[in-house]
Amino acid sequence: MTGMESPRDIRARIARSQWTKPTTGLAPAYAQANVVILDRRYAFDFLLFCVRNSKPCPILEVLEPGVTEPHATAPGADIRTDVPLYRVWRKGRLEQEATDITGCFDAGMVSFLLGCSFTFEASLTGAGVPVRNIEEGKNVSMYVTNRKCASAGPFSAPLVVTMRPIPNDLVMRAVRITSRYSLAHGAPIQVGDPGALGIRDLDRPDFGDPVTVKDGETPVFWACGVTSSLAVLSAEPELCITHAPGHMFITDVLNETLAAL
Amino acid sequence: MTGMESPRDIRARIARSQWTKPTTGLAPAYAQANVVILDRRYAFDFLLFCVRNSKPCPILEVLEPGVTEPHATAPGADIRTDVPLYRVWRKGRLEQEATDITGCFDAGMVSFLLGCSFTFEASLTGAGVPVRNIEEGKNVSMYVTNRKCASAGPFSAPLVVTMRPIPNDLVMRAVRITSRYSLAHGAPIQVGDPGALGIRDLDRPDFGDPVTVKDGETPVFWACGVTSSLAVLSAEPELCITHAPGHMFITDVLNETLAAL
Repeated sequence: MTGMESPRDIRARIARSQWTKPTTGLAPAYAQANVVILDRRYAFDFLLFCVRNSKPCPILEVLEPGVTEPHATAPGADIRTDVPLYRVWRKGRLEQEATDITGCFDAGMVSFLLGCSFTFEASLTGAGVPVRNIEEGKNVSMYVTNRKCASAGPFSAPLVVTMRPIPNDLVMRAVRITSRYSLAHGAPIQVGDPGALGIRDLDRPDFGDPVTVKDGETPVFWACGVTSSLAVLSAEPELCITHAPGHMFITDVLNETLAAL
Repeated sequence: MTGMESPRDIRARIARSQWTKPTTGLAPAYAQANVVILDRRYAFDFLLFCVRNSKPCPILEVLEPGVTEPHATAPGADIRTDVPLYRVWRKGRLEQEATDITGCFDAGMVSFLLGCSFTFEASLTGAGVPVRNIEEGKNVSMYVTNRKCASAGPFSAPLVVTMRPIPNDLVMRAVRITSRYSLAHGAPIQVGDPGALGIRDLDRPDFGDPVTVKDGETPVFWACGVTSSLAVLSAEPELCITHAPGHMFITDVLNETLAAL
């Protein structure tokens, strides 16, 4: 599978379970999405959580109860089959991972597609800003911070951030570039001070892998979509389905159409 | 009452019904909001309508069921008393106008505050772009277009736009300036061609007043918050409360904090 395949072709392959790995680097010109699926009785409160916390949870599309096709962002796709790996949660606990959730999706379920930092990683590398997790072939480093998101109904969560070490003289360029992508977490929320976020040791991320921070580099922190997973689990819904970390839904939306100015 | 009064002071005066007129020009540095209040059973679908149509319906704040204080945008305010003039609708029909809705607000009601173009009008005039409706002391011209908003549940509406005639050589400046305010309708949706929007006669707006279009000026069209009123009425809810046109809720949010880049 190469970066030249269309999102539609890649999704078709994923639907046949011929691709069950992370989606980093696939169809790099197109936006990928975090996925959260839960019952309609939680839908207002969870949508409000996303609206109130748009940096970690930027809304790309919401599918109304029972709708399986993301008409706006991926016409023809099926949210029940087109994610490489799902996680099925019962009362906030992981029950199983699955490549197809057709069996547990019902007419009351609402699906949320939320923006992902893969969108701005392509723009960073395209502008000469190195992205260490890509260079080292690792998952990005993620940390639970001491900042609380605004809660909504039963949903609450600490802000989760990603960290990328940026050469000191390129930090402002990284800020400028990512600021354009408000639907992919936008500008960093912190530059250079892990302690201010309550992060004690960059080498021990809460999710993902540690990456090398070189001399002359500054750790830069962006809001992270994993925040949405912590929020949805905080409510301990009877049933909830998310993508497995790194195994995103690939949309037909060009990254550049999400950019401001 | 002058432009120097604080939003808090103006709201206090409004709460005492000492100001029941339109709010244009009051506390011009601060964002004003369209108001929609309706029962919680409509809340998910209406919030989704706003998310799907963020140009006409940019969300500043949503108050959960029964909450009367806009904690995020106007701490200490009361959504039941601090709008100069409300409209109370039953099954989509206007029942009465009121300066206080304490009597019909109940624990199930959800309040939506949506951005308003007053925010960018101040920036336009501040950058030397004339705003004709202000110059002529009129309400802005509004038109129902031939474009349909994305619907959500029972909510649907045509896109409503405002029109401001802009001197030809300042059109790009007006586009550039308003593009920064995505929470106040953002960039124009059309420049120079009323017919493309299905507007037959600029002198006969559907809402507001006609204004003079001079030789050497181009009509420029922006998405309008009145769209949200048409959407909410389309569902014919048992009870719904909105602000009366032009009689907005004044927040403590500085316009400039809503601006991108």
